[in-house]
Amino acid sequence: MYSDRIRLTDLHNKVMPASQAAALIENGMTVGMSGFTRAGEAKAVPQALADRAREQPLQITLMTGASLGNDLDKQLTEAGVLARRMPFQVDSTLRKAINEGRVMFTDQHLSETVEQLRNLQIKPVDIAVIEAVAITEQGHIVPTTSVGNSASFAILASKVIVEINLAQPMSLEGLHDIYIPTYRPTRTPIPVVACDSRIGQTAIPIDPAKIVGIVISNQPDSNSTVLPPDADTKAIADHLVAFFNQEVALGRLTPKLMPLQAGIGTIANAVMHGLIDSPFHDLTMYSEVLQDSTFDLFDAGKLSFASGSSITLSARRHAQVFGDLDRYKSRLVLRPQEISNHPEVIRRLGIIGINTALEFDLYGNVNSTHVAGTRMMNGIGGSGDFARNAHLAIFVTKSVAKGGAISSVVPMVSHVDHTEHDVDVLVTEQGLADLRGLAPRERAQVVIDNCVHPDYRPALQAYFDAACAKGGHTPHILRDALAWHINAEETGHMLAR
Amino acid sequence: MYSDRIRLTDLHNKVMPASQAAALIENGMTVGMSGFTRAGEAKAVPQALADRAREQPLQITLMTGASLGNDLDKQLTEAGVLARRMPFQVDSTLRKAINEGRVMFTDQHLSETVEQLRNLQIKPVDIAVIEAVAITEQGHIVPTTSVGNSASFAILASKVIVEINLAQPMSLEGLHDIYIPTYRPTRTPIPVVACDSRIGQTAIPIDPAKIVGIVISNQPDSNSTVLPPDADTKAIADHLVAFFNQEVALGRLTPKLMPLQAGIGTIANAVMHGLIDSPFHDLTMYSEVLQDSTFDLFDAGKLSFASGSSITLSARRHAQVFGDLDRYKSRLVLRPQEISNHPEVIRRLGIIGINTALEFDLYGNVNSTHVAGTRMMNGIGGSGDFARNAHLAIFVTKSVAKGGAISSVVPMVSHVDHTEHDVDVLVTEQGLADLRGLAPRERAQVVIDNCVHPDYRPALQAYFDAACAKGGHTPHILRDALAWHINAEETGHMLAR
Repeated sequence: MYSDRIRLTDLHNKVMPASQAAALIENGMTVGMSGFTRAGEAKAVPQALADRAREQPLQITLMTGASLGNDLDKQLTEAGVLARRMPFQVDSTLRKAINEGRVMFTDQHLSETVEQLRNLQIKPVDIAVIEAVAITEQGHIVPTTSVGNSASFAILASKVIVEINLAQPMSLEGLHDIYIPTYRPTRTPIPVVACDSRIGQTAIPIDPAKIVGIVISNQPDSNSTVLPPDADTKAIADHLVAFFNQEVALGRLTPKLMPLQAGIGTIANAVMHGLIDSPFHDLTMYSEVLQDSTFDLFDAGKLSFASGSSITLSARRHAQVFGDLDRYKSRLVLRPQEISNHPEVIRRLGIIGINTALEFDLYGNVNSTHVAGTRMMNGIGGSGDFARNAHLAIFVTKSVAKGGAISSVVPMVSHVDHTEHDVDVLVTEQGLADLRGLAPRERAQVVIDNCVHPDYRPALQAYFDAACAKGGHTPHILRDALAWHINAEETGHMLAR
Repeated sequence: MYSDRIRLTDLHNKVMPASQAAALIENGMTVGMSGFTRAGEAKAVPQALADRAREQPLQITLMTGASLGNDLDKQLTEAGVLARRMPFQVDSTLRKAINEGRVMFTDQHLSETVEQLRNLQIKPVDIAVIEAVAITEQGHIVPTTSVGNSASFAILASKVIVEINLAQPMSLEGLHDIYIPTYRPTRTPIPVVACDSRIGQTAIPIDPAKIVGIVISNQPDSNSTVLPPDADTKAIADHLVAFFNQEVALGRLTPKLMPLQAGIGTIANAVMHGLIDSPFHDLTMYSEVLQDSTFDLFDAGKLSFASGSSITLSARRHAQVFGDLDRYKSRLVLRPQEISNHPEVIRRLGIIGINTALEFDLYGNVNSTHVAGTRMMNGIGGSGDFARNAHLAIFVTKSVAKGGAISSVVPMVSHVDHTEHDVDVLVTEQGLADLRGLAPRERAQVVIDNCVHPDYRPALQAYFDAACAKGGHTPHILRDALAWHINAEETGHMLAR
C-alpha cells in the first residue's frame, strides 16, 4: 500500500479519505497549507473542506506559501470558508471578496509570515496540510513542486495532514533543501553563500506522531497562465539587456551578471527569455518561482544553477520537465520561501531583482498591489523582500494599460509598495530609467524622457514643471497629484478627454 | 609633535594647515567626510573649504555618514560648496536649498551608501576627510565619536585627509569595531551574533601612503539638541512600556526584551528614558546613535551593553561621559553604519526598532521625511534599515503639531517611507495601535480608536466610513484622501474650519 510513498510503516493506518481528514479542521482554526505560485498546494483536503462547508458552514484563517492552483481559493471563497487569508493570492473570486471586505487579507512580505509565527506575533497554526511525494522512513515529509512555508507550518503545528499526491513524480525527492533559522537570541548566520549552497535536509523533519491523517490524491498542479512574449515585453527585455551590457562595460557587472530573481508573470518571464539571445553566460538564479524561462535558459546553455521555492510551468513545459527531471536536478534546489526571500541572503549574494509594477511615479515610487489605491490585485509577494536588498532593484511594466486609457507612469502613485529609496531601475517598452544616485527632480526628468508613453508625456512634463515652480525636494501639487486616477475612475481615461 | 596622536613618524611631515588640506579638494570632486548625527565630523577642513569657496567658487558632492554638527552644512551651503549631498542632513539652511532645488539631495537608507560605492553604482569618492583621535603605528586611523561611513570612505578613496582633533579624548581608542563585508560574489556572513560581538579592528586599516594631509584641530562636537521629556512624550513612553509588559505576559518577549534601537530625537530619547522606571532589566541596544538615554540607562543599572555608530550627547552629559569614558567603555562598541544598520544583523538579532514618524495614515503607512509630500525635513536615515527587518517596527509621534492645526494621523500620508507591510506598532500620546496580522480595514479602526487626537477623530472616522461604503481592500476616496494636507497648505489648519 504505497510503501514507496509512505515508508514509515507505522503510518499506514493513518491513510484516510479526504473528507475524514477535512473533518479534523474545526471552525475558527488557523490552517497552514502548502502551495506557492500554483505549485505543490494541498488539493484533496481543501476541496473536501469546501464541500463540507457547503453543507455545514465553517470559517478558518488560511495561510499558505503564496497563491494556490486548481481554483482552490475560488472554491473556498464560494463556500464561505475564508474568514482571513494570508500572505498572497491571485484568484479573481477571492480578490472580489477581499475588496468587498468579506475576507480579511493580510498582504505580507513572503519572507515574514513564518518569522511572525515563530515569534508568536500572529495566531498560531492549529493544523498543517502539506502535499508530499513521500513520507520517509523517519516520518519526514518530502514536499512536491514547492516548499513555500510548508516546513515551518508542519514544524510549528501540533497536527499535520499529509497529502501524498501520486501525480507528482518521485524524482522530486532530493530536490529540496529544508533549513529553518535557529531561534533568537542565539540565531546564527544562514550559511547560504552561493545559489547552489545546500545547507539543510531533503525532507521536513517532524515528529511522525503529529501526522494525524494521510490522504492519497492524484491531481496535477495547474499550469501557469503566463502569456508568450509580445512586442512590448520583447522591447522591455531588449532595454534591460542593453543596460546590462552597459553595466558590464562599466565594470559594474561581469558577463555572468549576478544571481537573477524574476517575479511571477508574463513580463518578468519574457525578460528572462530575453537573456537567451544575450551575450551573458554562466547565469545563476536565486529566485522565488522557477518558470518556463528558467528551463529555456538551461536548455540554451545560458544558466548554470537555479534556486527557488517552487516550479510553475506551462502545459508546454510541464510534462517535458517533470518527465525528465533528472536532466535538470543537479542544477536545481527548492528552498523554504523564508530562505529564498531572506534579506540576509539577498543582500549577501547581490541579487538582480526584476519585478512587475502596476504603476510607478515620477519619483520612483512603485505600486505593485492596488488599483486606484483601493482595490487589491494579488499582493506584494516577494517583490519587497528582493527590491529592498537587491544589488539592482528593477521594476518593469508596459507604459499603458486598457488600450491606452491608463498610464502606468503617473504623477503620484495611489499606493506605495516600494519607496523611492528602494527602486534603482524602471523599464517600460518605451525605455529604461536608471535612478541610482539621483535626487527626486533628476529622477523625474529621466522617467519622463525614457518611460512614459508619448500620449502621456506632455501631460506628465506639464505636471512636473508646474510642481517644480511651486518648489520642494519632491515637487508635487497635491490638488492634482491623484487627478489621473480620479479621471480614470470617473471617465474611464486618465486624461479625461 | 603629537607623537601620541600620530604614531607613525613617517607621517609627521604631512601635518599642514586646514587651508592647505582644503586646497587638495578640487572643483567637481566627490568628497567623503566623517560625521554621523553631529558626532565625529571633520571640522577644520570643511570650514576652510567654505572659506575658500567664498573667495573662489567651487562645488562638490558631499557624502557623510549622516548629519554634521558645528553648522558645517550651513556654512557649506551658504558658501555655495554643495552641488550634491547624501545620504542625510538636519540643517535648516541646507534644507531650504534642497527644497528650492539648489542642492541635489539623495535621501538614502544609511546602510546602503557604501554598498553602492563599493559596487561602483554611484560616483566614487575622490578624497576622504576623516576626524581621528590618532593614527596608529601602522598608519591606521582611529575614529572619534562616530564611525559612520568613515572606514569605507577612507578605504575606497585614493587620497585621505586626517583631522586629528585634540578635543576628542584618547580614551576613545579601543571603542571602535571596524569590519567591512567581503566583496561579492564571495561574500561571507557578517559574524555579529549579539550586540557585544566584536568582529573587526579598532582602527581603519589603510595604506598610510594614501594620507595626503594631516590637520590638527581642537573643536568639540556640537551638543545634541534633544529636548527633555514632556507630558506627551512621557505618555508615549508609558504606552510602550505597557505594551512591552503585555508582550512579556504573552510569552513573546522576556523581561530583557530584545536589542533596542531608537532613532535620534526628542521622542525616541524620551521613550528610552521611560525604560528607567520599567520592570525590564539586562537590556541591550543595537542602534545607530547612542544618546543621553543610553547612559542614563547604564547609570540606572538597566542596560548591559550598547552598540551604535556614534555617541551624541547633551551639554549636561557630554563632559561627564567623555571625561570618564572608562566607566562605560567595556559595555560599548561603535561600528560602521553599514554594520549597525545591516539588514542581515537586524533580522538575526530581532531588534525592537523605535523611530519617529512625521505622520502616519489609517492603514499604517508612515511618512518620515516630507512635509505635505513635497518639502524635505531631514531624510529617512536608518529608520528603513531597522523597520523592514525588525522584530517590532514601532513608530512614535505626537498626535498633533502646530498647536493642533496639523494632525499626525491622516487619511492618506502625503509621502511613504515605510509601507503598510513594514509597520507593526504606532504610538501617540493618545495610545498605541498594534497592527500585526491585521487587514487594512481592521488597522484603520485600531488607529482611529487609539492614536488620533480627539479633535480629529470624528473627521477621520467619517472619512473611513465613507471610504468603506465605496469599497476596496484599502478603502479610500481619492478626491478627499489628501484634502487635509491641502487644507493645511491653503488655510493653515487641516480641517479648514
